[in-house]
Amino acid sequence: MTTAAAVADFRTYPLICAPSGVQSLADRINLEWADGRISPFHHLWLRDNCPCDRCVYSVTREQVFEIVDTPDDLKPTATHIDNDGCLLIDWPDGHHSRFDPGWLRAHAYDDVSRAERLAGIPQSHLWRSDLQIPVFEYTVLMNDNSALLQWLLAVRDIGLTQVRGVPTDPGSLKLIAQRISFIRESNFGVLFNVQSKADADSNAYTAFNLPLHTDLPTRELQPGLQFLHCLVNDAEGGESIFVDGFAIADALRSEDPKAFQALCEIPVEFRNKDRHSDYRCLAPIIALDALGRVAEIRMANFLRGAFDTSVEQMPRLYRAYRRFIAMSRESRFRVMHRLNPGELWCFDNRRTLHARNAFDPATGARHFQGCYIDRDELLSRILVLQR
Amino acid sequence: MTTAAAVADFRTYPLICAPSGVQSLADRINLEWADGRISPFHHLWLRDNCPCDRCVYSVTREQVFEIVDTPDDLKPTATHIDNDGCLLIDWPDGHHSRFDPGWLRAHAYDDVSRAERLAGIPQSHLWRSDLQIPVFEYTVLMNDNSALLQWLLAVRDIGLTQVRGVPTDPGSLKLIAQRISFIRESNFGVLFNVQSKADADSNAYTAFNLPLHTDLPTRELQPGLQFLHCLVNDAEGGESIFVDGFAIADALRSEDPKAFQALCEIPVEFRNKDRHSDYRCLAPIIALDALGRVAEIRMANFLRGAFDTSVEQMPRLYRAYRRFIAMSRESRFRVMHRLNPGELWCFDNRRTLHARNAFDPATGARHFQGCYIDRDELLSRILVLQR
Repeated sequence: MTTAAAVADFRTYPLICAPSGVQSLADRINLEWADGRISPFHHLWLRDNCPCDRCVYSVTREQVFEIVDTPDDLKPTATHIDNDGCLLIDWPDGHHSRFDPGWLRAHAYDDVSRAERLAGIPQSHLWRSDLQIPVFEYTVLMNDNSALLQWLLAVRDIGLTQVRGVPTDPGSLKLIAQRISFIRESNFGVLFNVQSKADADSNAYTAFNLPLHTDLPTRELQPGLQFLHCLVNDAEGGESIFVDGFAIADALRSEDPKAFQALCEIPVEFRNKDRHSDYRCLAPIIALDALGRVAEIRMANFLRGAFDTSVEQMPRLYRAYRRFIAMSRESRFRVMHRLNPGELWCFDNRRTLHARNAFDPATGARHFQGCYIDRDELLSRILVLQR
Repeated sequence: MTTAAAVADFRTYPLICAPSGVQSLADRINLEWADGRISPFHHLWLRDNCPCDRCVYSVTREQVFEIVDTPDDLKPTATHIDNDGCLLIDWPDGHHSRFDPGWLRAHAYDDVSRAERLAGIPQSHLWRSDLQIPVFEYTVLMNDNSALLQWLLAVRDIGLTQVRGVPTDPGSLKLIAQRISFIRESNFGVLFNVQSKADADSNAYTAFNLPLHTDLPTRELQPGLQFLHCLVNDAEGGESIFVDGFAIADALRSEDPKAFQALCEIPVEFRNKDRHSDYRCLAPIIALDALGRVAEIRMANFLRGAFDTSVEQMPRLYRAYRRFIAMSRESRFRVMHRLNPGELWCFDNRRTLHARNAFDPATGARHFQGCYIDRDELLSRILVLQR
């Protein structure tokens, strides 16, 4: 890679294939590569992405040039590939651009290059009841960045992990959470205490059984990662149950496509209200990404408002909703574990539904602490660790 | 309203019209109201929404009953309207439900009732260059909840407000932000300092002109509200410019529907990266809600990655992008103001694009502080203040 044409990024773009020629067309160039691939680049795209110091401020690596300040029909006056394989372009106003070939290859938007990039996107590994939950050691995670990266990749791709050897002092959850990034505060605080309370403002703070759910479906953006850290667990019951919501959605899609479609289409309201707050969010239970893959589950029976859809749609919604919950109760999907003091769960709250068996506060104390971190922080941390 | 059938909510549902009769059908009842409206309620919906103490925990007001635990073909054994106008239902297992008529009317899902609720949803008031920016007084907002509510309604519906008389001590922004709720932290901190810095990690922290943008389009959920508080402003230049992104999107929709469509459909990557973080978000510039209304603008030229769409779509995307930005520069949309010490802007960051003229640090000091709060917190606070 040539540093002369350094691009505004912290990543590097190794030269995996050199340009072999360039052809000029009316609104674009065709760049030919040594392996025969041809990548069209529109003139506006090239001018827009000029990496020079006048177009990109070198300190922030952010663009100061704006493409709207060029004419619609902008065309190079000359194009050329230099001895380093860089693409050189002269523009009519005297501006010059120089593009690193590794960067160009990595950002080419011909069909083959785009399909290659798409294939490189990390995939979720779906799981069922036979999941071997990935386990990590607190001390190692606190001291070793490569172990930290392995943990975060497991959280991203599997969505359920356990950490052992965590100190049982209240607040110590913060230390390991902050190995990833800052904590996302909510109306339940920065850290929340999961204990049975007489004046509970959520069923989570009772000794009740809690059915499988995501936390804070009442918010436009549900928290990405959830941590649950066990400080004391002397009470009988209270086991943690997990299912892979993506696996259930996938099974529903093939076993009952009409129910799947209904849960993708019909929005449902979730509510959380107490004396000081009144949160409501209207959204479908299953969200798909731009590629039609399941990207998010939103579910908590105890936080749900009355269904509000047309008379014609109502039976369809109930049928689909009941089916999803019935599936989440099937043993093929469920893993159940009792958390011991010094252990914590870290899971993808928008994918991995969690439940709790009822516990008996008369048999002993039970104290968990929890917190949230968003997916944005997880993915940023992974990218920085991978640099 | 009868308290005997109290529903699990902090709101009240006045009896605006009494039930006059009930008719049983195969999978639902038809409730007839005194004004002739007929509201179907499915049996499952009624059982699901039973407000009794066994179905809803009275302390948390959250449901403990789960509708999946009933048979598909559940039917009442008896239905009856009592002297208070409540709907009484007996179920085959001996369970009884009693529904407050005000609550039923407020949650009825016949077409007329749904259209009524839809018409009651708050509408954005679109604005252009002749906007009279709503101005509020710090001391009043800190002490008077009805003034606070008026401010928050202006933020919600107009999306741009100014507050005057704010103390100019660093950190005092927190006090007024916390009148709404907790602050949303980001990778730039809880409060961020907008000052020209030699080691800037964003163009915001330079003296450059900043084109019209939303903050943190690099995140899955852009911050809902942005605060910018002026502590010192002795430098020449640096005026604030605002446009109503919803008004521009609306104008684009009618003046150039193809460009509008392209910005709704084609996702664009936004990036923010420094030595410690690497944020990326791929999303369309205009997001619509379930009703097809413009719900969000995502835009910051200096945080944009290289466009990545097919060769066929690329010219369409550039044409639309350039058109949107060109419109945002038109005087018909822009308001410009210089902020003085002790004044702050509070605006909807996902709607109101903001820009800054370049300033000259040699002519004097300039120090703003900023922070974010999410829309969820704004809407919750409004609902609590309206109780």
